[in-house]
Amino acid sequence: MRTDLEEKGRLAKAASRKLPKLPQDGKNKALLACADALERKAGDILAANGLDLDKARANGMSPALLDRLALTEERIASMAEGLRQVASLDDPVGEVTGMKKRPNGLLIGRKRVPLGVVGMIYEARPNVTCDAFALCFKTGNAVILKGGSDAINSNIAIVKVLREVLEEQGIDENAVQLIEDTSREAASEFMQMRGYLDVLIPRGGAGLIKAVVENSKVPVIETGTGNCHVFVDESADIDMARRIIINAKTQRIGVCNACESLVIHERIAPEILPLIGEDLGSRGVEIRGDARCRTLIKDAVPASEDDWGREYLDLIISVKTVSGIDEAIEHINRYSTGHSETIVTEDYGNAQRFLDEIDSAAVYVNASTRFTDGFEFGYGAEIGISTQKLHARGPMGLEALTTTKYVIYGNGQVRP
Amino acid sequence: MRTDLEEKGRLAKAASRKLPKLPQDGKNKALLACADALERKAGDILAANGLDLDKARANGMSPALLDRLALTEERIASMAEGLRQVASLDDPVGEVTGMKKRPNGLLIGRKRVPLGVVGMIYEARPNVTCDAFALCFKTGNAVILKGGSDAINSNIAIVKVLREVLEEQGIDENAVQLIEDTSREAASEFMQMRGYLDVLIPRGGAGLIKAVVENSKVPVIETGTGNCHVFVDESADIDMARRIIINAKTQRIGVCNACESLVIHERIAPEILPLIGEDLGSRGVEIRGDARCRTLIKDAVPASEDDWGREYLDLIISVKTVSGIDEAIEHINRYSTGHSETIVTEDYGNAQRFLDEIDSAAVYVNASTRFTDGFEFGYGAEIGISTQKLHARGPMGLEALTTTKYVIYGNGQVRP
Repeated sequence: MRTDLEEKGRLAKAASRKLPKLPQDGKNKALLACADALERKAGDILAANGLDLDKARANGMSPALLDRLALTEERIASMAEGLRQVASLDDPVGEVTGMKKRPNGLLIGRKRVPLGVVGMIYEARPNVTCDAFALCFKTGNAVILKGGSDAINSNIAIVKVLREVLEEQGIDENAVQLIEDTSREAASEFMQMRGYLDVLIPRGGAGLIKAVVENSKVPVIETGTGNCHVFVDESADIDMARRIIINAKTQRIGVCNACESLVIHERIAPEILPLIGEDLGSRGVEIRGDARCRTLIKDAVPASEDDWGREYLDLIISVKTVSGIDEAIEHINRYSTGHSETIVTEDYGNAQRFLDEIDSAAVYVNASTRFTDGFEFGYGAEIGISTQKLHARGPMGLEALTTTKYVIYGNGQVRP
Repeated sequence: MRTDLEEKGRLAKAASRKLPKLPQDGKNKALLACADALERKAGDILAANGLDLDKARANGMSPALLDRLALTEERIASMAEGLRQVASLDDPVGEVTGMKKRPNGLLIGRKRVPLGVVGMIYEARPNVTCDAFALCFKTGNAVILKGGSDAINSNIAIVKVLREVLEEQGIDENAVQLIEDTSREAASEFMQMRGYLDVLIPRGGAGLIKAVVENSKVPVIETGTGNCHVFVDESADIDMARRIIINAKTQRIGVCNACESLVIHERIAPEILPLIGEDLGSRGVEIRGDARCRTLIKDAVPASEDDWGREYLDLIISVKTVSGIDEAIEHINRYSTGHSETIVTEDYGNAQRFLDEIDSAAVYVNASTRFTDGFEFGYGAEIGISTQKLHARGPMGLEALTTTKYVIYGNGQVRP
């Protein structure tokens, strides 16, 4: 292991032994102080962000990505507000559940504890730096951050502010560390840090997540890619279905809980598809449909097999017609990424079957997929959306950054 | 991917879509029928086991391993009894928890569901074949088993019986499949089966577990290795400490929750170490101690740095003396494998500090580490003991073979 990364691992591990001993009050006070300091030092952060933006423009970054990278006074205030919100949340650490007396007198309970050291590997948005610190710190974890090269100056400036505040508060500043080397080699070594990292959470595009999942020797929580489906059943309320489809596809296109594929019952298709064609067409959405869809929406282009599995993150949607709920469930379970799917129906049995049989993190009846989000689910925060089945599934709030341990009170018991 | 393994993956995935629809009654009836069939067909299984034993003897397998591999009428009856016990347990699948109405009217709950397809990779004991099937089947998972070459004929015979019963009961027999190719190449391919396996659980020696953890592209639940510590604090009840140490070290030596290392407060060492030297010496245990230990136990041999991290699984123990609870906690957190540790103390503050600060799956006060086990913890079954922090930590019962999904009931909600 590279000595610079190993040293960061060692320091994080040492910090992770101290953080669980901090009282909740102390953690919250530090988070509020971090929020104030971010606002006070906004000038430094904006200057650093300016360097990143200059380089990005020189490299020809697209306007959409430039917008994600750019910080403003308002965005810094919003990062600070995020820290204050996390300070106001309940701390899940320390709760003991299910404590039971066994017949031999042992008293066994499960105590919620921090994971230890969390690794985060992520792309452009500098606000992730601040959010990830806040959630990890609140739950008593040390975090090592590895942001992308595009935002490196911004990330250095933000982490500097956070570490200064921790030091002032008498807290080990190695609760948050940034890997400043943004090379692929450093990323690759970071994924091998078993013994130092307890978990690695990637956030970003499908390419980054695939690379982490395939190469990490540290346990990973896979997040994010969403090929989300809306199924319009035969009995659907047409107006409701149209509202949900418009919302799920167009309310925000670049996000993982946006709809990428429609599945339409063949008996409602003649009535609804022409309307959907207008709804989406007038909003600039390209429709890629199967043969039946194309007879009902004149502007639709042919969908290829490849389209059924695509996460477009763009003004494009695929449309598949099916003979009924069986084919709909089979199609969705085959092509979805296990993120969020919704059925629009007035049929009780089909609603229940969809909820039971669709194998995704969030399964809806008669609502937009866009609600899959830690804030919308009432967690007050989100470190990502897990699309895997181990540990955490769906929006991850503070609890996903914890584990449990068994605490056992005895009075001399030995095993017969 | 090899076509034979891919085919098994495809069949398992198909079975995993059907199993969650089986009623609990149907699953329990099938488990009971499997138990009866194992006993009825004990002759076939014993004949197959005989082939394995002949080969093992010809290869010079040690008596201890031969004993693990050998089946008898009684051991088959005990496997059948295990199936009946699993049938009698509560099924965790289907429970919906934390259902809450959000301000926008969405009703959001978490439903407990099967993981999907479980992969098990394990060594000699043929009973794991039966146990793993029972626990996976009870929780609605399909399982693909990859046992070791030593037990291959026994495993084939057991799986044949199980599959025949499933078929008779009208249940997809691909709920359980065995990979009959016991080569390393097949094992290596098995670990790459992303998209087919939802989780891979290795059970066996440290070498097997390390190989799986390092090479698997499928999420792994790491199980088992235990370098468990007993810390005797200054205030310990000497008799209780002796009973606990004798039990934790010698009640059964080849298991992961046996004690491998003693940590002794220096102020109680002069009184207790000579007694422990006799207790363990008279039971054939070799003591490897630090310098102070060796002045107090004449037969002790010097411990090297390497000894502090060893899981002996043998009649050997390391002994370290420390200046107090701080050094004890630091030493244990540094060298333990995060399995089970116990403190023997009459000091309230030190007991609480040990419970809080030791970073292991099970942390005890005044009891033997030997209790870390799904049956002793009251789960009625165990698929393994997790020493990692994600998903499950400590003894894993039925719930560890499940995940959750969010089920959301709406009435037309779209995101503003």
